[in-house]
Amino acid sequence: MTDYIIQDEWKIIENKFDPSVHQISESLFSLGNGRMGQRGNFEESYSGKSLQGNYIAGVYYPDKTRVGWWKNGYPEYFAKVLNAANWMGLSIQIDGVELDLAKMEVSEYYRALDMQEGNLVRKCIANFPDGKSLEINSIRFYSIADDEAAAYRFSIKALNFSGKISMASFIDGDIKNEDSNYDEKFWDEVAKQQNGNTSLLTIRTKKTAFDVCTATSIKTYLDDKQLKINANTIEKEKWIGQSFELDIQEGNTFSFEKIAVNLSSENYAKKELFEQATERIATVSAKGFDQLLSEQAAAWKNKWENSDIIIEGDVAAQQAIRFNIFQLNQTYTGEDARLNIGPKGFTGEKYGGTTYWDTEAYCLPFYLSTAEENVSRNLLVYRHNHLQKAIENAAKLGFKDGAALYPMVTINGEECHNEWEITFEEIHRNAAIAFAVYRYINYTGDKAYLKEYGLDVLIGIARFWAQRVNWSEQRNLYVMLGVTGPNEYENNINNNWYTSSMAIWCLEYTLTALESVKNMDAARYQEILDNTQFRFEEETEKWQHIIENMYLPEDKEKGIFLQQDNYLDKEQILVKDLPASDRPLNQKWSWDRILRSCYIKQADVLQGFYFLEDKFDLETLRRNFDFYEPRTVHESSLSPCVHSILAAKLGDEKRAYEFYLRTSRLDLDNYNNDTDDGLHITSMAGTWMSVVEGFGGMRVRNGALEFQPFLPENWQSFSFQIGFRNSLIKVSVNKENTSVLLLSGPSLKLKIWNETKSLTNAEIVNWALPVLEK
Amino acid sequence: MTDYIIQDEWKIIENKFDPSVHQISESLFSLGNGRMGQRGNFEESYSGKSLQGNYIAGVYYPDKTRVGWWKNGYPEYFAKVLNAANWMGLSIQIDGVELDLAKMEVSEYYRALDMQEGNLVRKCIANFPDGKSLEINSIRFYSIADDEAAAYRFSIKALNFSGKISMASFIDGDIKNEDSNYDEKFWDEVAKQQNGNTSLLTIRTKKTAFDVCTATSIKTYLDDKQLKINANTIEKEKWIGQSFELDIQEGNTFSFEKIAVNLSSENYAKKELFEQATERIATVSAKGFDQLLSEQAAAWKNKWENSDIIIEGDVAAQQAIRFNIFQLNQTYTGEDARLNIGPKGFTGEKYGGTTYWDTEAYCLPFYLSTAEENVSRNLLVYRHNHLQKAIENAAKLGFKDGAALYPMVTINGEECHNEWEITFEEIHRNAAIAFAVYRYINYTGDKAYLKEYGLDVLIGIARFWAQRVNWSEQRNLYVMLGVTGPNEYENNINNNWYTSSMAIWCLEYTLTALESVKNMDAARYQEILDNTQFRFEEETEKWQHIIENMYLPEDKEKGIFLQQDNYLDKEQILVKDLPASDRPLNQKWSWDRILRSCYIKQADVLQGFYFLEDKFDLETLRRNFDFYEPRTVHESSLSPCVHSILAAKLGDEKRAYEFYLRTSRLDLDNYNNDTDDGLHITSMAGTWMSVVEGFGGMRVRNGALEFQPFLPENWQSFSFQIGFRNSLIKVSVNKENTSVLLLSGPSLKLKIWNETKSLTNAEIVNWALPVLEK
Repeated sequence: MTDYIIQDEWKIIENKFDPSVHQISESLFSLGNGRMGQRGNFEESYSGKSLQGNYIAGVYYPDKTRVGWWKNGYPEYFAKVLNAANWMGLSIQIDGVELDLAKMEVSEYYRALDMQEGNLVRKCIANFPDGKSLEINSIRFYSIADDEAAAYRFSIKALNFSGKISMASFIDGDIKNEDSNYDEKFWDEVAKQQNGNTSLLTIRTKKTAFDVCTATSIKTYLDDKQLKINANTIEKEKWIGQSFELDIQEGNTFSFEKIAVNLSSENYAKKELFEQATERIATVSAKGFDQLLSEQAAAWKNKWENSDIIIEGDVAAQQAIRFNIFQLNQTYTGEDARLNIGPKGFTGEKYGGTTYWDTEAYCLPFYLSTAEENVSRNLLVYRHNHLQKAIENAAKLGFKDGAALYPMVTINGEECHNEWEITFEEIHRNAAIAFAVYRYINYTGDKAYLKEYGLDVLIGIARFWAQRVNWSEQRNLYVMLGVTGPNEYENNINNNWYTSSMAIWCLEYTLTALESVKNMDAARYQEILDNTQFRFEEETEKWQHIIENMYLPEDKEKGIFLQQDNYLDKEQILVKDLPASDRPLNQKWSWDRILRSCYIKQADVLQGFYFLEDKFDLETLRRNFDFYEPRTVHESSLSPCVHSILAAKLGDEKRAYEFYLRTSRLDLDNYNNDTDDGLHITSMAGTWMSVVEGFGGMRVRNGALEFQPFLPENWQSFSFQIGFRNSLIKVSVNKENTSVLLLSGPSLKLKIWNETKSLTNAEIVNWALPVLEK
Repeated sequence: MTDYIIQDEWKIIENKFDPSVHQISESLFSLGNGRMGQRGNFEESYSGKSLQGNYIAGVYYPDKTRVGWWKNGYPEYFAKVLNAANWMGLSIQIDGVELDLAKMEVSEYYRALDMQEGNLVRKCIANFPDGKSLEINSIRFYSIADDEAAAYRFSIKALNFSGKISMASFIDGDIKNEDSNYDEKFWDEVAKQQNGNTSLLTIRTKKTAFDVCTATSIKTYLDDKQLKINANTIEKEKWIGQSFELDIQEGNTFSFEKIAVNLSSENYAKKELFEQATERIATVSAKGFDQLLSEQAAAWKNKWENSDIIIEGDVAAQQAIRFNIFQLNQTYTGEDARLNIGPKGFTGEKYGGTTYWDTEAYCLPFYLSTAEENVSRNLLVYRHNHLQKAIENAAKLGFKDGAALYPMVTINGEECHNEWEITFEEIHRNAAIAFAVYRYINYTGDKAYLKEYGLDVLIGIARFWAQRVNWSEQRNLYVMLGVTGPNEYENNINNNWYTSSMAIWCLEYTLTALESVKNMDAARYQEILDNTQFRFEEETEKWQHIIENMYLPEDKEKGIFLQQDNYLDKEQILVKDLPASDRPLNQKWSWDRILRSCYIKQADVLQGFYFLEDKFDLETLRRNFDFYEPRTVHESSLSPCVHSILAAKLGDEKRAYEFYLRTSRLDLDNYNNDTDDGLHITSMAGTWMSVVEGFGGMRVRNGALEFQPFLPENWQSFSFQIGFRNSLIKVSVNKENTSVLLLSGPSLKLKIWNETKSLTNAEIVNWALPVLEK
């Protein structure tokens, strides 16, 4: 854990320069706009430890798989998000000495991520070894108003000297991924050009042949006066830029503006890329830095109007929840159905791929409630577009007749994970993808989605489950052998209650969906049946038989469902009785010891209670919660949010709050000691869920919003904005009551606690606290 | 499969040169002497595909572990048998053109491994592109009379030309392992020297700093006349040799003898290595090639007198069994307790490490019956010497108080395997090591072994099992969770019957062993108890409690033991009903599909019936055999031998023979399509077991040999030599009877079928065939 971040409601601030936390800060100060992003690397040269990262969404490289022992079925390649060209390249020498904070004393250091306006500022004084002091001021942003553009202004003031500045601005495409499996570089040069103050570099990924053209335009100022500089073009392989010199007098401020656009061949014809980039950089730089900066602020203002959560009485919590919302909005904007939400977003390389079940299980609710319908719809369409690949993926594992298994990790629909117990066996991901269809329609009411994109995905998934179970002669029931549940601290288990329950749910929902599409649009229905070569009677009968005859392990005496067969054979020592020195287990215990222990990495049976909550009564939930919670170590950042929401449902407000705390500042406080690798983007959505679905108790039932809010003890109040079917409301919870304001859109009815009221205009409607009945 | 090897009773012969099978032949024609060995690489330059391999037993390199996903508990390094300096280096140019069979037409090719005398000969005509024809004759051996020495004679005859021969003889230490994890070379040069016709090169392994000095001495002849050559020293890094030229006339034969010694710092002080090698090469080369060759033949004659199996009426079987015996004797001679039996011996790099449970489970019986007692004793002492490392290994996984877990794969006692489901969970290996102690004492009668080396190993192993089980509140019994049995086609299973049964056996045997040592030598007993800090009452009571309360899965209705919990939940389609195109499963099916299938890679429950046979009656065996055999795919070469022995025991001679056939010519016919990687040395011992314990029905009970022989239908007869407690006997089985000849040593009683007779002198004693009672 680290705690150097200064608390502030709208800003992430560090106020001293400490190289030992530099890589953590690089993660925390990451910028992005859904189309591209960047770690908080310094603009200028920095020779200290740093993870350089520039990322273009959707541009990947299939890195040859590397394993100790090959297992049949592993993919040959692992698609990796690529470190792309660094457009920021900046070298500044004062009288021949490089400005490099790793090599000089740094004073009055201040860096802040302004989440409200979407920019990153830095201010500090660099004290050169020869006594020269230089003040640095920089501001940088990735535009969400124009998602191909990014820019910075970098100013230096000669505090106590006059001298010569030698400067180089460049685009560096000669970069590598730190996690390259075979130490290869992934890019080749295609073209480069220098036109006046505009630099252009196009590089191409090996194998996948994505072209990315980076164009930059620079302007220089001495104090407020723009300079005409006489620059020399400098170039190397995959590298182009300009260098120039000027004299600076004591007290002068030299400013440098660099505006960049990144265009990829995903969106432009390759042969037009250079030309288009030339046009784009001209247009964007013509606007000027200040104009771009204010467009950015306006665009973020709009984002916050739809997604802000305000917490009064707890600055740390306020900062944290905004940080999470900010990062989620930086990572995915929903404008392009080919993109998705990487677990590290644009903040690091680790994990490769972009899409895990995190998207459907944890991220979807955030985007459903805070963005246009189209944003979450695109998350679903992404999977629809990968259906054929999922069918091929299942075929590789021996499934047939259109059964689809979505990959554990993917960018382009192909599996890029290679650990058999996960890749081949953590198949519950398939259910989360089906469940997302249900959730989306339930939230938005967009039933047409089912016939457009939903049903064929559901059929592929249902077919997979129907083939993945087998009939046990011994039990006279269907069983599901050899799976890994959400609790990855057990592998290759039999009859994981969560997986089997979700499989059944998928079959049930697909049957319903078939009926629903049939009623909605008979022609389209027939078309889907034809396209999927659906053998209606045979398949639906089989599904029905499985639904009615699936084995789900439970312990009737204890009144609980069993995570898996023979879970109770394990030694049942509770987490609280484990020595602190044994935690976290994943660092302290050998893998086999973890596997045979009763400890649960993340919500598993309880994840089922979260998804399928209306199938179970409160007492059943309570028994299972009381059994599993004390055995859960929450060593996945995706775990506490589910426990928080269920604790809230059970009326255990104290614990709901405790679970929320575990991830709310996960990265800001470097809780897991791995923030240097990048941020835990998808778990940020889990924190949002804890607040809205946990403390706010929000659900959508029968096409309407319901809330069961409570106020965490040490908060004064909290409020959140929710978009629901064209209406935008603000829900505020304080000690006295819950009030809701209809900010925009049509009137709607809300049920809060047990009382339903209507919001018809911009008036605050209050619900009094219910009488406690514990 | 390939079938180019010519059948012969004593020789492995190929009679054409086919580059496409060259690497298979390189494996088949491997030479070794327990201390060192070599693949059947050509002496002269060969630019075609080849796996160059020279190996020095016990000299290893800790290659940094490489995995896809790290699991806690993995060893950082993986000890690999090293490719060592190639002493054979030979380059021959005729008028400037390199002799290289990859680049010329080869005629009258003949190569034979003479197993009777232990040498490898080659004869062929190399037809140069310019029309010159050169006859090649070579003979090579690795001396088992002097295990540091190897030699070859290489003759060339100018068939149709006169010309200039340019020749270089060298030692090449600049070699690499093909399976290096990070493409590193593992050796550094220490010293080299050229003295007259003697070359010396010492190289040192990185990290482990083993020094190996290779010294060679050469002689040259024109026809029968020794030449005085005027050679130049040539050298490069890690490389030294001599070059010279001479003229050859049509019809002349030029011969070249090269004798080598390899000395390692395992056996000599490093600073004396060079000097010792200088002396050794002088002594050895003074003997001359022919003398060394006849010593070799004599030494092999002696080996065969103790270990030969003669099969009449089936040349293929005769060749195969001798090949297996020959390779086992080339791999391990038992003179050095630091060495062991690598699964590929000195014939390839694959698998790394040297010691698997193969040694104890499959190889021990061969050495017990065909070599001095000391040879198998040293196999056991090897593990005794690694006890402390095994305790440390267990501690890494969370065990304590002297519990020992022997590694899955090791050279020096440290684990060098990195696949969690095997490394951490295939723990039954521990039981095989204990069982070997029992087996050794049962066979040899060397009870003193228990107090000298056996008991502390047993205590360490017993302690491991006592900690590895846990009490299941639910069952009111002990369970053993998260293991992988011998059937590696299931991982992380619960209550593997074999593992749990063997664990119980270990506890029982250790209790007996404690008692036995106590009675044998009270002082030594107390010493062991003190050294191991044995808490007698507490520990033995716990063990007794486990013995009496261990859960062993069975199906009472079917009357079978269950391989693991819920084995019967699997879909029970028999192997015979699998489409041929699905086999072998390990190439055709994805790993998850294999895991959830009922198919068994190698004897698992049946392995228990093999080891613990006297615990079960014949009907129980039959039921289990009849259940498991049809589900076993035998995709491990260690599987069929056990099924063969059990089928023989059940009187199913036909199937016993069929199982034997599956591995008897595994490498000669390249049955698994992987002989190019090296030979399956340890499974060769399994074939020996099929003949002696299967067809011969040999057992040791109550200190005496018993046999239940039968003759496979298409054999005329078979006979085998067996050493038993200082006596050497030859058992011959033909259609009429079984006869035994006492070849040497004291008289002994034998029970064959149900009749016990005495052998008192060198007379053949006959047992008539029993009346069949099937």
